[in-house]
Amino acid sequence: MADQKSAPGDMDAESFRRYGHEMVEWIADYLNHSERYPVLSRVQPGEVRDALPARAPERGEDFESILGDFERIIMPGITHWNHPGFFAYFAITGSSPGVLAEFLSAALNAQGMLWRTSPAVTELEEVTLAWLRQLLGLPASFEGVIYDTASTSSMHALATARHVAVPDVRQRGLAGRPDVPPLRVYCSDQAHSSIDKAVMALGLGHAALRKIPADEAFRMRIDALQQAIAEDRRAGIRPMAVVATVGTTSTTSVDPVPAIADICEREHLWLHVDAAYAGVAAILPDRRDTLAGCDRADSLVVNPHKWLFTPFDLSAFYCRHMDTLREAFSLTPEYLKTTEAAAVHNLMDTGVQLGRRFRALKLWMILRYFGAEGIRERLAGHMRLAGMFAGWVDDSRDFERLAPVPFSVVCFRFHPPDRAASEQELDTLNARLLDAVNRTGEVFLSHTKLDGRFSLRLAVGHIRTTESHVARAWELLQQQSAALL
Amino acid sequence: MADQKSAPGDMDAESFRRYGHEMVEWIADYLNHSERYPVLSRVQPGEVRDALPARAPERGEDFESILGDFERIIMPGITHWNHPGFFAYFAITGSSPGVLAEFLSAALNAQGMLWRTSPAVTELEEVTLAWLRQLLGLPASFEGVIYDTASTSSMHALATARHVAVPDVRQRGLAGRPDVPPLRVYCSDQAHSSIDKAVMALGLGHAALRKIPADEAFRMRIDALQQAIAEDRRAGIRPMAVVATVGTTSTTSVDPVPAIADICEREHLWLHVDAAYAGVAAILPDRRDTLAGCDRADSLVVNPHKWLFTPFDLSAFYCRHMDTLREAFSLTPEYLKTTEAAAVHNLMDTGVQLGRRFRALKLWMILRYFGAEGIRERLAGHMRLAGMFAGWVDDSRDFERLAPVPFSVVCFRFHPPDRAASEQELDTLNARLLDAVNRTGEVFLSHTKLDGRFSLRLAVGHIRTTESHVARAWELLQQQSAALL
Repeated sequence: MADQKSAPGDMDAESFRRYGHEMVEWIADYLNHSERYPVLSRVQPGEVRDALPARAPERGEDFESILGDFERIIMPGITHWNHPGFFAYFAITGSSPGVLAEFLSAALNAQGMLWRTSPAVTELEEVTLAWLRQLLGLPASFEGVIYDTASTSSMHALATARHVAVPDVRQRGLAGRPDVPPLRVYCSDQAHSSIDKAVMALGLGHAALRKIPADEAFRMRIDALQQAIAEDRRAGIRPMAVVATVGTTSTTSVDPVPAIADICEREHLWLHVDAAYAGVAAILPDRRDTLAGCDRADSLVVNPHKWLFTPFDLSAFYCRHMDTLREAFSLTPEYLKTTEAAAVHNLMDTGVQLGRRFRALKLWMILRYFGAEGIRERLAGHMRLAGMFAGWVDDSRDFERLAPVPFSVVCFRFHPPDRAASEQELDTLNARLLDAVNRTGEVFLSHTKLDGRFSLRLAVGHIRTTESHVARAWELLQQQSAALL
Repeated sequence: MADQKSAPGDMDAESFRRYGHEMVEWIADYLNHSERYPVLSRVQPGEVRDALPARAPERGEDFESILGDFERIIMPGITHWNHPGFFAYFAITGSSPGVLAEFLSAALNAQGMLWRTSPAVTELEEVTLAWLRQLLGLPASFEGVIYDTASTSSMHALATARHVAVPDVRQRGLAGRPDVPPLRVYCSDQAHSSIDKAVMALGLGHAALRKIPADEAFRMRIDALQQAIAEDRRAGIRPMAVVATVGTTSTTSVDPVPAIADICEREHLWLHVDAAYAGVAAILPDRRDTLAGCDRADSLVVNPHKWLFTPFDLSAFYCRHMDTLREAFSLTPEYLKTTEAAAVHNLMDTGVQLGRRFRALKLWMILRYFGAEGIRERLAGHMRLAGMFAGWVDDSRDFERLAPVPFSVVCFRFHPPDRAASEQELDTLNARLLDAVNRTGEVFLSHTKLDGRFSLRLAVGHIRTTESHVARAWELLQQQSAALL
């Protein structure tokens, strides 16, 4: 109990060493044996909250007892995203070099709002995003900036598109202006909800987002896009931007970006590409086509915290008109003026957030530690595992696949042929199967709806996931589905 | 070179242990001896960038050599926010328990978009923000949520105010609507630039922000606010919100919140309080008045990453109408639907960002480790040090104070009485003095302008800052100013 309370200041060095070393051992053990824990937390709503005191302690407590409560109260309430049996949503990884980099970044506590508030934060971000850009095969005309999430990236993309469509919007806004017609943004009906939220936040309104129907493989229909734009123009609505998705959330389908880029060029519309999950597949030479046409986009987002082994959060936003984005947002009060402003970029100028965490450090360490080769190998491995699983589904009598598998996500459902079942009964059956499988604690899958049908999703993306984990998921699906009948 | 390259997967456990333990030693040394480094980085623009290869390595590299480059290339480019001689902007701290918590959080890599994606992320956030709310003396009617920065917090506050002012804005937006008049937000001319950025992002336009003049102590003038609202109403502009600041960035002045709350109630305007820096002072019983009137605000932001020893980033946003905020933003696509939705809150519903990092962990560990008592002692210590420094300025023949010192920031300038100097000459002299003092590498101060005069700012806020550091800053100011003459 004697580690810090005698004098003000921080924890003393000796205590930091003791707890730090203890934590290294704990984390090493956790990362290598996370399979001890159920993937999906089993606590009930309110259970973690009710186990904690209602008030902060008056007196400081020993760090040992805080760690004890962490283990006893917090850990049961964790759903283990860093578990190789995590197959839900998009499976992600906080890889070891990334975890160590975050430790270092927290210790430095550098805040990169201005170049001078840590030149390395700004410049390492520039360098690391250039590395990633080259790996993705995008041209140097794309300048990058790191945000927290793809939601923030896409919001800034559409804010910049809005700035182009209504050049005085920064000063005059959108309200009370007879000179500004309703604006329109287009995306497919498979696009991510972050696009909906972006138009809502930006004051465009949800009605400003027109969802273009997708084809049978869940890709935006070009003819429908073309027609929607023409219709809108006739109705006095001003088309502003198209958001294409490379790797939609439900099925990882890829919109026909080259054809969309043609339309955007012809119609003078901003093209934003949401490649948050699948963009990184372009790092593989034989999958370079993943980002076909994206060199013609105005902006693009790819999330290293999704499928590039980077601890959450780190979203990489690329823009061919970053100066326009800066025009839309930059603003320097006196207390942030610096003498070197002309010679450098200040990260605060690229968007809403003033403060910027030192996120580039982890991406830099990860790219160096694994190398381009190591990353390709791991991404290819995940796609191989998903393909293997899809093959099992295809060969099975009782399961059916509901979408193509371009990357590492498989959409499928249980559909026993000898049970005449309505679509509604199948939905219920699959929802129960999902629940049963997740209850085992060995794997965690999620779901979506495809053409109205409840679909299970198995997403491979964790760095420690191997064939045995995928095989176990398949085994559990078979066992639990049999038990349901 | 043999630590991971043989087989895919993550770094092996043995290597993680080796580098982890090495890093604990490095960080313990850094936190206790950051004074070895110049506070303000001395690198030139482009120096860090040019020292790094232009492309990512093809083959993975040994972690040892990455750490070597970190030390050799990155460290010289760091401005040391975690240095007790950091007195610029608002001085902040990544305290030891916070650094350890971030390490743990990175290893778990839990993402709290939904309650089920880690119940402990949602519930620990709820509990920890309730603890902080009680410490601040705010009523339970305030519900909290954690964002990255105050910029994001204030943007969400004003988005919610916009939703109240224009109830169908979520669906219909602001453009092309003859039924929506120009909207207006009010803040003082001392308010933070994040308010400007928020109105720009939200499509209200910079012109929608009316800056109310401040009085001689840099506080919003109530008569001017009242008059501006009346004028706007007469001109057909719809007043929407007032942003009051508790602890402005230049001088830490406090707007008269009780009187502003009266006006907001009478005029039916949303009251948002930006207490990002100074709010925490209310944790001290004899400074409870810091947040006087704030219980009547609709929303309030306080940043534990500023003056509560929490590694960047963690902004605590409190709102008395969080359901309205959820109404403005929540949106659940099929792939995020859950069975427990009715019984829990899902963090993704509170704003733009879908993904949420496990930030509550660090605040929880910090509040427990230091305890309310330990936090009070440290905050009071910082205010005592600032008061001491202000006293030296006041007693000095050659320096003058330019603003009251309600908290831990002192605004002052060099003004030798025996040198007849114009205001412009004094500005130049003080800019040179600032530069000279920062060049010593022992301290880092920043500046602002007050009534047009260039003012130096000394902000106390680092947990390891002691009387000797403040005394050394004063000594350097005297030495360097003498040398300038």
